[in-house]
Amino acid sequence: MNLQDFLIPPAESAKRSGPKDMIVMTSRIRLARNLKDSAFPGWAKKAERVKTMKAIVPAVESLPSMKGCFSESLDNLSSIDKQILVERHLISREHAAKGAGSGLVFNKSESVCFMINEEDHIRMQCLLPGLQLNEVWAQINKVDSRLETALDFAFRDDWGYLTACPTNLGTGIRVSAMLHLPGLVLGEQINQIIQSVNKLGLAVRGLYGEGTEALGNVFQVSNQMTLGEAEEGIVERLNKVLSQIIEHEENAREKLMEQKPSVLMNHIGRAYGTLSNSHIVSSKETMNLLSFMRLGIDLGLFPGISRTVVDELFLITQPAHLQTQFTKKLGADERDLRRADMLRERLKNVDRPLSQLPPDGDSEETA
Amino acid sequence: MNLQDFLIPPAESAKRSGPKDMIVMTSRIRLARNLKDSAFPGWAKKAERVKTMKAIVPAVESLPSMKGCFSESLDNLSSIDKQILVERHLISREHAAKGAGSGLVFNKSESVCFMINEEDHIRMQCLLPGLQLNEVWAQINKVDSRLETALDFAFRDDWGYLTACPTNLGTGIRVSAMLHLPGLVLGEQINQIIQSVNKLGLAVRGLYGEGTEALGNVFQVSNQMTLGEAEEGIVERLNKVLSQIIEHEENAREKLMEQKPSVLMNHIGRAYGTLSNSHIVSSKETMNLLSFMRLGIDLGLFPGISRTVVDELFLITQPAHLQTQFTKKLGADERDLRRADMLRERLKNVDRPLSQLPPDGDSEETA
Repeated sequence: MNLQDFLIPPAESAKRSGPKDMIVMTSRIRLARNLKDSAFPGWAKKAERVKTMKAIVPAVESLPSMKGCFSESLDNLSSIDKQILVERHLISREHAAKGAGSGLVFNKSESVCFMINEEDHIRMQCLLPGLQLNEVWAQINKVDSRLETALDFAFRDDWGYLTACPTNLGTGIRVSAMLHLPGLVLGEQINQIIQSVNKLGLAVRGLYGEGTEALGNVFQVSNQMTLGEAEEGIVERLNKVLSQIIEHEENAREKLMEQKPSVLMNHIGRAYGTLSNSHIVSSKETMNLLSFMRLGIDLGLFPGISRTVVDELFLITQPAHLQTQFTKKLGADERDLRRADMLRERLKNVDRPLSQLPPDGDSEETA
Repeated sequence: MNLQDFLIPPAESAKRSGPKDMIVMTSRIRLARNLKDSAFPGWAKKAERVKTMKAIVPAVESLPSMKGCFSESLDNLSSIDKQILVERHLISREHAAKGAGSGLVFNKSESVCFMINEEDHIRMQCLLPGLQLNEVWAQINKVDSRLETALDFAFRDDWGYLTACPTNLGTGIRVSAMLHLPGLVLGEQINQIIQSVNKLGLAVRGLYGEGTEALGNVFQVSNQMTLGEAEEGIVERLNKVLSQIIEHEENAREKLMEQKPSVLMNHIGRAYGTLSNSHIVSSKETMNLLSFMRLGIDLGLFPGISRTVVDELFLITQPAHLQTQFTKKLGADERDLRRADMLRERLKNVDRPLSQLPPDGDSEETA
């Protein structure tokens, strides 16, 4: 099965929408599960990993929600394919480094994905656009329950689900949301928000999870504790914090519009001007500039175009997605050239942003 | 007499052209002269400075080339007027700081200008667009000879013209040219060129002379020695060095076009994109970006517009020229806003640069 043919085309993927998706790009929950009486993947020899994988994959494939899924062992995927999966947030960077004895299975809509023999035997995630943690929880909970009828999970009544790393012990749950927070960054409030969120026992990370930078003003907020609290409680707590962050971001944008409109327009205008005229541009710079264009669209400064134009560019300008456009293998320098060509081409018919903010209330979704 | 009404409007000023003006923006010669038996301005008390000025000004005003000139004591000029004169290269920054007892006289075309009681009693300059040092020398030499029939200059047969600073002793001449060298800067050859030029006994300075930065890739090359060599010899020597620098700049541009077209187009495209979309922009950044747009015009990337558009912007975006557009006194922050407004407005009908360099030979003047 060809991975790239299976994946939703980026243009379609960018069109997916959900509640509050001006700020909340995606909602995600992943559960860590392990088979009873099998060594954790980091400890197991290859033969044992292959064995656990063979036990897990058919059970996953036969889940109703995985009908027609993509299922593959990692040694059958090229490094480009793996990198594409990382850029789609379907697998972790750590999983992409694995080979035989590790695998992945995900469904047609890319909403449910299993990593097999990453840190744990099973990492299952449900990912949906916008703020819909409850829906995400309902889906993944159902998937997990069904799978538990087919597989024998390592579980102790006193500790809960056993995991390779003690930080996941208990529920094995990580609830997270990917947030676009340019207002808080420009308003220089982001560090304060991160500190407050940390104090509530939640982690704030960059675009690709643990240890990564907050490129494009995108931050991932997630729970830290997995022990001693029911899943519903964790989801509920995250929901509360997220709605506060959303409010702060909305307020930050409004404050900027009122008090520093020129600073705001300056960032947005320059981002547009650079994206549509550069001939060499890195992936990092592109994300940071696209972030400001996305903000400009949110604020009604680009009446002609929709957010999906930018969201698609967010995806297709990343290294592996960019590479798929070319047969010849591109080096980093060449990618920076081709990325710039693509951006100029895509933005050539996009008019300059308005020179003034539209009157109050014209901006999407702010109410 | 109102200074601003007298000055050539920037749009007209930007239209002035001369040989090799793609690279040589202006050619200039200034002569330092002092009156016999009067203390140098730095030593003289105010009363004596006023006295020497009274002796000099009528003699200058009655020169045939100064017919209908602008003549004023510096204490009658506002600080904005003085700053405008600096931005036009009519007076030095040091002269702008002076008041009563110092003055200036310049002719209608702004080609001949006298600073009175700057560092010397008289600093006369002739300034013409493009590379025309011989013409500049012919004009200033004539002016000097005529003035010498009316005033008694401090002169010794063995030392030549006496000056306040020994570095000007002898001929009192400084021959200079303002060069636009983006090719050598982008090609990272500029430091090597500066070193070679220094070894030939010539100085390389920034846009506003001694101790100033090379904003907008503009460099001033001038002689250092004024003693022991006839004026014609100095002019000739500078001419030779300038034609070598011009050749190096032309070669650097050609080399960039051949070997690093994307680097070149990247700088030009981003400069255009930023200038036409920013909402806050400093004077320094503006000059640096206009420099790349000017290069883009030279290379034929902006078929619709002429170099005068950029040359006018070079002038009118500078702080004092910008201030003249507004009645209310602007702070630096407000200037950065108004400058950006002006640039967006001026460039709104300028199309994006071509995405490819035009075929060889299409660029102006390169042959």
